[in-house]
Amino acid sequence: MSHWYEESAPEADEEFRASAQARQASLTKPLGALGRLEDVAIQLSAVQRTLEPHLDKALIAVFAGDHGVTTEGVSAYPQSVTSEMVRNFASGGAAISVLAKAMDAEFKVINVGTVYALEDLPNVIDMRVGAGTQNMCVTEAMTMEQCEEAMIVGRDIIDQAGDIDVFIGGEMGIGNSTSAAALAVAHTRLSAMAMVGRGTGITDQMLAKKSAVVTRAMSRHLPHMKNGMEVLRRIGGYEINALAGAYIRAAQKGIAVVVDGYICTAAAMSAVRINPSIRPWLFFSHCSAEPGHSRLLNKMEAEPLLQLDMRLGEGSGAALALPIMQAACRLQKEMASFEQAGVSRGNS
Amino acid sequence: MSHWYEESAPEADEEFRASAQARQASLTKPLGALGRLEDVAIQLSAVQRTLEPHLDKALIAVFAGDHGVTTEGVSAYPQSVTSEMVRNFASGGAAISVLAKAMDAEFKVINVGTVYALEDLPNVIDMRVGAGTQNMCVTEAMTMEQCEEAMIVGRDIIDQAGDIDVFIGGEMGIGNSTSAAALAVAHTRLSAMAMVGRGTGITDQMLAKKSAVVTRAMSRHLPHMKNGMEVLRRIGGYEINALAGAYIRAAQKGIAVVVDGYICTAAAMSAVRINPSIRPWLFFSHCSAEPGHSRLLNKMEAEPLLQLDMRLGEGSGAALALPIMQAACRLQKEMASFEQAGVSRGNS
Repeated sequence: MSHWYEESAPEADEEFRASAQARQASLTKPLGALGRLEDVAIQLSAVQRTLEPHLDKALIAVFAGDHGVTTEGVSAYPQSVTSEMVRNFASGGAAISVLAKAMDAEFKVINVGTVYALEDLPNVIDMRVGAGTQNMCVTEAMTMEQCEEAMIVGRDIIDQAGDIDVFIGGEMGIGNSTSAAALAVAHTRLSAMAMVGRGTGITDQMLAKKSAVVTRAMSRHLPHMKNGMEVLRRIGGYEINALAGAYIRAAQKGIAVVVDGYICTAAAMSAVRINPSIRPWLFFSHCSAEPGHSRLLNKMEAEPLLQLDMRLGEGSGAALALPIMQAACRLQKEMASFEQAGVSRGNS
Repeated sequence: MSHWYEESAPEADEEFRASAQARQASLTKPLGALGRLEDVAIQLSAVQRTLEPHLDKALIAVFAGDHGVTTEGVSAYPQSVTSEMVRNFASGGAAISVLAKAMDAEFKVINVGTVYALEDLPNVIDMRVGAGTQNMCVTEAMTMEQCEEAMIVGRDIIDQAGDIDVFIGGEMGIGNSTSAAALAVAHTRLSAMAMVGRGTGITDQMLAKKSAVVTRAMSRHLPHMKNGMEVLRRIGGYEINALAGAYIRAAQKGIAVVVDGYICTAAAMSAVRINPSIRPWLFFSHCSAEPGHSRLLNKMEAEPLLQLDMRLGEGSGAALALPIMQAACRLQKEMASFEQAGVSRGNS
């Protein structure tokens, strides 16, 4: 009996890929002159099975959850900030709130598991799986039931979305860059030191502690990580697992995914381990200032579009990549061919 | 008696810069977490003298001109393509035509000097200074009168623009990456080989020839380049000089400039040499695939926002940077502060 998260996503179509490549070669520009934009348009053509790929209707959903590992002292911010930021998302004051408006995207905030219960807030969906995870240094972050429940939160957000063609996930959770670093170690088998970073801005001393915390957690859990679900349950987070569930469902429904920063990439890699068929639907928006992020992107053979030294999360980097990806679509669709425009071809 | 192009641009205001830095530190995000977007917003705050910088009304103007040096065989495309692409700009089929629409920018095309006269075209302004430049390998590209006239074309496009707050210049001219390489050598004194690239896509053999052509041109002109105007007249181009004039005028009028790729950067560096006061108004959009571009950007201490392996010109890279720069403005203006949002501060 297979689970919902194991169902295959639609494959990339190699005929549409070849046709899109031919179309790009016919447009009034030197071959390859649009660089990475051509790659984006061609890959979208292959998965959307059209020569006129489109990213017109975007959903940005930010998932929030707290992390038991914060008791180890790995963050510059108190745990209360997760809930406080949920309120800030709701009232429009956070970066991703501003960017969602600027990019004309539908915007949702989902509380998957803050420690503190929150009052009813406009635009915030309360789907708490628990009051924060357990400390992964001393036990599993959550039960398998909670792990699946968190993934279903993400799945259902996609299922309840209207007629979208692109999904951007964001996350908020004090301590979640520690969870992401552990996931990165689990998926790459590189050292904890290679995968921890300053997150919201910690000192050298805290960085060393964060590395030791990840090492401790991994020595406990690594022997038991027999599959992707076990990885997410042991060292993931409610919001991270919801992201993984949302990525899987989006791909299954033929919705392109724009992956944000380090934490989202760790969630995406976990999702790909659970369901490799989703990989062609994932587009990586940017490489953040977290040193582990580029290592994780390398491991996934993912080339991010942007490098803006950002390290905010919330989906902010992915939101900034969206207009560039939309432009890539419009260029492939709307540019004239050499023949249409009566422009002479080159001889190289 | 001073020339119009020597008049100073408004200085960056250091008090507004400091206030913008303080505002960025007050917003609900870790300090510096928006990376390069913070730099953009802060620099714009300093030059626009406001804490709410704005890039709402954009003009994209593409200048076209032909180059005598094409007779040396430095391009993969025939010279007729310059005129053919002007028609393509006018009819909406070129990349920059599509991007100008996507970015909701005003769009103008200016013929500063194609070899072939063009019929009347909608959206194309005919301001031909000459029928292409002379071959810089055997003589000066143009007279000083033509050089000044081409710069005035750019100046007047800015003067005739409505109430814009950002200017993007683009260029079209078969052979103009050879002119740009010569300008880059003139401004950096690096070798021709370091500054030539494949332009529209030439072979290894043509690349070697292009390098030799630049070397020959520079051995003729370098001893006489006593100032920036002399550089532009000897090895510039009508469209390049128009860009330089437009950049200078935009800065003089307090209009932010988003510089596109290699050719535009060569024009911008020439403009800065003529009038160093304009430098704070220049924002560099992307680093193209032309190897000389990153060297020229380094020399200008310019950090481009994007690296998308593009090598198209037309203003296309700058158009793609615009929504990111606009987002940087909106974030500084619209995000809540920690105090406004009731979010706890970090301890790092």
